[in-house]
Amino acid sequence: MPQFFRLAVAGRLIVPSCYQLLSIKIAANAPRFSTIASSQLLVGKRNYCKISVLQCDHVTKLSNRRSESCLTVNKFPGAITRPVSTMHMPPPLPENLLFRQLFDYQSYTYTYLLADQTTKEAILIDPVLELLNRDIHLLEDHGLTLKYAVNTHCHADHITSSGELKKKLPTCRSIISKASGAQADIYVKDGDAIEFGNLAIHVAATPGHTNGCVTYIMHHGNRPIMAFTGDALLIRGCGRTDFQEGDPRTLYNSVHEKILSLPEDTLLYPAHDYTGQTVTTVQEEKSFNPRLSKSQEDFIKIMKELNLPYPKAIDKALPANLVCGIVDLPPK
Amino acid sequence: MPQFFRLAVAGRLIVPSCYQLLSIKIAANAPRFSTIASSQLLVGKRNYCKISVLQCDHVTKLSNRRSESCLTVNKFPGAITRPVSTMHMPPPLPENLLFRQLFDYQSYTYTYLLADQTTKEAILIDPVLELLNRDIHLLEDHGLTLKYAVNTHCHADHITSSGELKKKLPTCRSIISKASGAQADIYVKDGDAIEFGNLAIHVAATPGHTNGCVTYIMHHGNRPIMAFTGDALLIRGCGRTDFQEGDPRTLYNSVHEKILSLPEDTLLYPAHDYTGQTVTTVQEEKSFNPRLSKSQEDFIKIMKELNLPYPKAIDKALPANLVCGIVDLPPK
Repeated sequence: MPQFFRLAVAGRLIVPSCYQLLSIKIAANAPRFSTIASSQLLVGKRNYCKISVLQCDHVTKLSNRRSESCLTVNKFPGAITRPVSTMHMPPPLPENLLFRQLFDYQSYTYTYLLADQTTKEAILIDPVLELLNRDIHLLEDHGLTLKYAVNTHCHADHITSSGELKKKLPTCRSIISKASGAQADIYVKDGDAIEFGNLAIHVAATPGHTNGCVTYIMHHGNRPIMAFTGDALLIRGCGRTDFQEGDPRTLYNSVHEKILSLPEDTLLYPAHDYTGQTVTTVQEEKSFNPRLSKSQEDFIKIMKELNLPYPKAIDKALPANLVCGIVDLPPK
Repeated sequence: MPQFFRLAVAGRLIVPSCYQLLSIKIAANAPRFSTIASSQLLVGKRNYCKISVLQCDHVTKLSNRRSESCLTVNKFPGAITRPVSTMHMPPPLPENLLFRQLFDYQSYTYTYLLADQTTKEAILIDPVLELLNRDIHLLEDHGLTLKYAVNTHCHADHITSSGELKKKLPTCRSIISKASGAQADIYVKDGDAIEFGNLAIHVAATPGHTNGCVTYIMHHGNRPIMAFTGDALLIRGCGRTDFQEGDPRTLYNSVHEKILSLPEDTLLYPAHDYTGQTVTTVQEEKSFNPRLSKSQEDFIKIMKELNLPYPKAIDKALPANLVCGIVDLPPK
């Protein structure tokens, strides 16, 4: 006896091979759906359709949680239903942008090199002390002049190379938010622009992991295309809120108001990743972030119950980062 | 007394702050040079210019080694001269391409997800067994159907997830070169195309690290835009040639004939990186690769003198990869 499902949001229903999609009835006008394979059905946004599935002897319920575009199937053994990423062409990048993503295997930190290839002015976002020489070498290879060492916040897990970069490259000035409480040449706040060559990143205050956390947003024309989210938003995760000035309610509001409100195809580059992923999009995190796609109350509950260990580098990293990373470290 | 230098190749002269660039005399027509900062001078390709530097009391010699576009300065204390990356706009990518670079922290392996967002067909290049679930999850999030698990060669440092992917995703077939000697559903050779949706990668045989090493090249229109080089070419390095069927002369020829002959702005994505870098270009590696920018004889000498330790995972990884990664591994 066929079963009927009513899908009311965008998503994909994957029916295991022991079942068979029997028929599809569309209940709304302008339907946008497509069968990917014999066992899969893609349903477009805001379309309603009825699907008949053969050999299904369990009641299946599909909830319509608008905030998450999420399908839930209960009591349908073997069936996997998950929301599916909407197709987004990658946003066009400025032609003169040189962009490199760099990684520190010790603290799992991403450093970003951005430069105007025409004027050769560059910035480094969240540079790491131990990788000073790698980053200087890369700047030299590309013939770049480092204008700013930019920090998303006062990190607790690694020491910034801002101070050492300034020593080695006299053109460089350090940047951090005023609210971070750390020293720097230039203090930025929400709405400020950091210019290098004919390019710029814009500052969005995104407190919650720390008070001074900011996200740097790059535009192409008037359109946001990339955001460097620091620890506010990680790929399918977020920064912890249980030390420094962490507050889950503030973080939730920051991310939803300043990051997940950007165009859906905006590329999001976090300060860390622990799963080997390099980039995500607004649309993906709105759909799949297991913490931030939840309600604010659920998010606060999740964050309060994480019970994470004390950060192992914090006692060394925090005091150092408050003074641009310039400290006399004990020999290893 | 000012000193005069004659630069005959593209490059950058960095003069330390204790010196001062005095004047520049151009000896060729259509000069393409620019001062980046008061202490730096960029010299365009095939332009000749005379630079006067104040307070220099040493003889400076600039060699013109055409194969490397390299400047050498002798006896000029404190002066750093290095070749500089020519400005290249990133090549335009196909609009329907979904591209994700993924990393394995254990074996430092890059896995690449490529998909046609229109048809939802995807391939994974060099997937890693331990990260099977991450990769399947990512495919599901994007609503993709995995068509092929593609391997650049029979790896010695990690086990491929090709076999497990086939078990979990029945649409998937495994691919490797015939010359690898490993089992797979489909064997490819130089010149073959691997199609997914309306996209394709083309196979270029690049032996030398192993006999079966191939590079996969993606085109946009008729133009190469990205190459997945496996272990043939790494960022500022290359795969070792002292085990499996390694041969430095073969590797040198492969890389120069099949990879460094691609358009200079072609993005190169290696199978590994050990310095936290994610991507390079043909132009960069032609200029800065410390091994492959040398002559063939110098390269062979460098490779023979590396004296690398025995690969720690080879005894487990090689037998497993010969059979698509399907083995009974001893419990950890």
